[in-house]
Amino acid sequence: MSAFDVSMIKGVFAPIATPFTDAGGLDFQSLKKNMEIWDKTRLAGYVVLGSNGEANFLTFDEKVSLVAEVARINEGRKLIIAGTGVETTAETIKLTAETAKAGAQAALVLPPFYFKAAMGNAALSMHYRAVADASPIPIMLYNMPGNTGLNLTSGLVAELSNHPNIIGIKDSGGNIVQISEIVAKSKPGFIVFAGSGSFLLPTLAVGGKGTTAALANIAADELADIYDAFMAGDMQKAKQAQLKVMDINAAVTSKWGVPGLKAAMDMMGYIGGRPRLPMLPLPEKEKAELAKIVAAFRK
Amino acid sequence: MSAFDVSMIKGVFAPIATPFTDAGGLDFQSLKKNMEIWDKTRLAGYVVLGSNGEANFLTFDEKVSLVAEVARINEGRKLIIAGTGVETTAETIKLTAETAKAGAQAALVLPPFYFKAAMGNAALSMHYRAVADASPIPIMLYNMPGNTGLNLTSGLVAELSNHPNIIGIKDSGGNIVQISEIVAKSKPGFIVFAGSGSFLLPTLAVGGKGTTAALANIAADELADIYDAFMAGDMQKAKQAQLKVMDINAAVTSKWGVPGLKAAMDMMGYIGGRPRLPMLPLPEKEKAELAKIVAAFRK
Amino acid sequence: MSAFDVSMIKGVFAPIATPFTDAGGLDFQSLKKNMEIWDKTRLAGYVVLGSNGEANFLTFDEKVSLVAEVARINEGRKLIIAGTGVETTAETIKLTAETAKAGAQAALVLPPFYFKAAMGNAALSMHYRAVADASPIPIMLYNMPGNTGLNLTSGLVAELSNHPNIIGIKDSGGNIVQISEIVAKSKPGFIVFAGSGSFLLPTLAVGGKGTTAALANIAADELADIYDAFMAGDMQKAKQAQLKVMDINAAVTSKWGVPGLKAAMDMMGYIGGRPRLPMLPLPEKEKAELAKIVAAFRK
Amino acid sequence: MSAFDVSMIKGVFAPIATPFTDAGGLDFQSLKKNMEIWDKTRLAGYVVLGSNGEANFLTFDEKVSLVAEVARINEGRKLIIAGTGVETTAETIKLTAETAKAGAQAALVLPPFYFKAAMGNAALSMHYRAVADASPIPIMLYNMPGNTGLNLTSGLVAELSNHPNIIGIKDSGGNIVQISEIVAKSKPGFIVFAGSGSFLLPTLAVGGKGTTAALANIAADELADIYDAFMAGDMQKAKQAQLKVMDINAAVTSKWGVPGLKAAMDMMGYIGGRPRLPMLPLPEKEKAELAKIVAAFRK
Repeated sequence: MSAFDVSMIKGVFAPIATPFTDAGGLDFQSLKKNMEIWDKTRLAGYVVLGSNGEANFLTFDEKVSLVAEVARINEGRKLIIAGTGVETTAETIKLTAETAKAGAQAALVLPPFYFKAAMGNAALSMHYRAVADASPIPIMLYNMPGNTGLNLTSGLVAELSNHPNIIGIKDSGGNIVQISEIVAKSKPGFIVFAGSGSFLLPTLAVGGKGTTAALANIAADELADIYDAFMAGDMQKAKQAQLKVMDINAAVTSKWGVPGLKAAMDMMGYIGGRPRLPMLPLPEKEKAELAKIVAAFRK
Repeated sequence: MSAFDVSMIKGVFAPIATPFTDAGGLDFQSLKKNMEIWDKTRLAGYVVLGSNGEANFLTFDEKVSLVAEVARINEGRKLIIAGTGVETTAETIKLTAETAKAGAQAALVLPPFYFKAAMGNAALSMHYRAVADASPIPIMLYNMPGNTGLNLTSGLVAELSNHPNIIGIKDSGGNIVQISEIVAKSKPGFIVFAGSGSFLLPTLAVGGKGTTAALANIAADELADIYDAFMAGDMQKAKQAQLKVMDINAAVTSKWGVPGLKAAMDMMGYIGGRPRLPMLPLPEKEKAELAKIVAAFRK
Repeated sequence: MSAFDVSMIKGVFAPIATPFTDAGGLDFQSLKKNMEIWDKTRLAGYVVLGSNGEANFLTFDEKVSLVAEVARINEGRKLIIAGTGVETTAETIKLTAETAKAGAQAALVLPPFYFKAAMGNAALSMHYRAVADASPIPIMLYNMPGNTGLNLTSGLVAELSNHPNIIGIKDSGGNIVQISEIVAKSKPGFIVFAGSGSFLLPTLAVGGKGTTAALANIAADELADIYDAFMAGDMQKAKQAQLKVMDINAAVTSKWGVPGLKAAMDMMGYIGGRPRLPMLPLPEKEKAELAKIVAAFRK
Repeated sequence: MSAFDVSMIKGVFAPIATPFTDAGGLDFQSLKKNMEIWDKTRLAGYVVLGSNGEANFLTFDEKVSLVAEVARINEGRKLIIAGTGVETTAETIKLTAETAKAGAQAALVLPPFYFKAAMGNAALSMHYRAVADASPIPIMLYNMPGNTGLNLTSGLVAELSNHPNIIGIKDSGGNIVQISEIVAKSKPGFIVFAGSGSFLLPTLAVGGKGTTAALANIAADELADIYDAFMAGDMQKAKQAQLKVMDINAAVTSKWGVPGLKAAMDMMGYIGGRPRLPMLPLPEKEKAELAKIVAAFRK
């Protein structure tokens, strides 16, 4: 881990897809090829072990070795954030420590969610505080209600923002009212990221700092166009850039998820390959639809 | 009805609360007093018979007479839009015609929703086209999933936007991704309004034209501050103005609804009074909480 | 209205479909033909103005005249219950009084639901008590969360069951745990009806008294088979009868709703005809599927 | 593993709670004490590694050792089913094989659910068939939409019921219509279990064979009363027994979950103890409420 200024966490991050070999193991060679392309983009950093990285399909050891490999290839050029949230407090603390050793500079922590009825604010606050207390690296909260069935409320986030080692949140819920409330109520400097490219500009408009978006795997510069135009005060250009990515963003997130993202990567010069089972690759019919969306986007 | 240029539909509209007399009838005297105050604000217009006007609690005759009275008091100073969507196509057509005669310049049409499983895109498209064909005044769609349990998708809205007499949409769902898609896919000039003040700035950022917001009943100028700052290109000021209204906006919408709005009106110089039964007035304990939010907002 | 013993409310009731003329008005001639067939079944009674009767598409005057006509044709042979719940307390009281005069022996009262966030237990309790206090006929609660987006909890129902003029509930939610809790917590003799034929036997097993089921429009005797077998203690036969109706019941409720029911009526010797707009008739493709389900049911 | 006739899977099973030591490890001593009490009840068997066993909080090795220990203590007196469903197909196969070796006679397999949008019927069918093909012991499906946010539809279940090594389902969703459809559409002899004690009798009425219920940890005989009365054809007694458990069942499931169950165990002579973090023990105030419910149940 190299020390860094947390204010560097801004702009466009890619929650990178995890390539697998035909035998089903981690495919570091394909990872390297993808990283070589990403290196030439305006990506600010990588999120390893995010939902788009199929983190929930990886073992503890695979997770740590994947972070280590990304760090080895990266050689400090871009920031590295690791997804380390699992179901128990103890395992989350352990995984955060190990990925930090392996090179992660910050951790993105999904809440425990299987026992959602028991995950009230008291339990979640205890959990996040224990993880942040123990962690050698800064913690970002990760709100992902679509997959977890659990929402981190603006009140909880604001309270947690006061912990010195909790520096921000990636909110994938897309509720722009909640995102605005988080900005309004959290400590000054608390980093709010759009969890999808589809609401990057609205998030920036209310005070967010960037995005961690599946789409950044294949269109980092087009997302950076939104960010850069906004930062330059060109709202007309920012709006056009935002509207341009709506369809392709939906294709690799809400519509077809990881199978859609990996298929799009294969179409656009990256190595996507098959998801791990039980996730099936995108069927041929949907691939043809996706190809049209990709073609329209590239025009 | 006076002719008008639909491009005048922009900025901040108030879905005005409907005051009742102690006997339970329409209270035109209180209405007039409220309108005298609104007249001094930067409100662009009134939406009569919106959800905040308890339209679902009014009879057909009450609805028409309320529009007529607003038009009489208004004397052409502000635009008047009437909420005319009811459960059947025939009654919606009839109410639209009558409110147009009474002075409404455009109609905001809630979809039929009781039989939600039967209200697929085919039924909704047929319904809206029939209403728009018959209507003497332009039609705005009204998406209000929180109350109706039914969402007008961006695909349906885009298709309907091609009807010459369907000029826009008020989207109260707050899904900024859907709002962006509507802007991206609908005909040029299609008017997109935020259905609540809590997401006015994000809506403007992606191409929206204004808001019809409960909050405009009590804070029209504070909402106009967001709009005016955005139009002037001052994103920092627009953001501050947006964050300033989050709490008070929630209090009169998602948190306490019409009872909260009417109580806030009573606290802020307007005449709110009691909702119609079965809607109960805000309980005393919640009124005390609301008073704090109002005080914080006014600071 | 004729006096009757509320313990007669048991067995199978049909929420009768409302036939319309080609011109769109009420079609009393077709109604009479349907009633002549129903007369030969084991139906215990009619629910006029239920969801399946498209009550939400009828005007106040149409509602009253429909009840009057059913009562005239019925000549006291079967019980008549009228659906009288509308959005305001005052209108619900008025409609209940008028339909009672027209011949309804009990009223089935849907809760107000447009302002669902404001319809907490305090408002609903006030509303139902006011209606029951004013009503000349006994009141049954009507829980229909699929259409209203609002659930009458077992706690609220138990509390309301203590009102002397509130005699039972039709629960269409299908939550058998809630139905069991209602039986366990309500006053002795409180009548609990399954709101669909798909869960009649489970409801009887936990203490319910019958059903008001869309399916009773076309298969009253097959539903009566479930009821009669259960009352006779023949659980094996009751189970077979229940499993036999699952597919056809789904076809005319959850799958295709009123359009499915009316199409099935047309196929089975009744007069269904078109729903009122904006509800569209069942498309041809779905009609072909329905025909297969009807054929399988009749074997 | 001992061979057994799958028709022995009937009656009441307990998804046993997992006791932890103060240091946070598995507490086999307390487990043994609980099993000594359960041994004297009419429990038909144990489900180890269910949701109530906090399986999602245990490591792979802990899971296998827990099954082995239960098998060791049990000495073949009751049936043992292990919960083995995790996120990937490969890991589920591996865990099923290992727990079978450790003594499980059947496996209860939760579906993968994190990527719920990608878990359509094609993916789920592939997954379950692969697991069933590889498994040395029979497979039961486990539908738990409350925790997973994913429902196994009756169509999918019916299709999977044709696999020779898929013998049944535990359905915790509580949708009695779906349960009836599963019975009606699946292969003869397919075992359907209520996933909670709150709908045991309705499930039996439509053809189910028993229950795996959290409540069985503390009230196995009271649940067996429902089952035995039903089997004896005494529907009145079965109904009374079912209504008697509604409140206590809700307390240890929908209301307070595992923390409620463990607290109730402590009150009723078993060893519950603390859940694993981040799950917090039941707060004192709720404990007092629970104590009243327990007292009312015991009367």
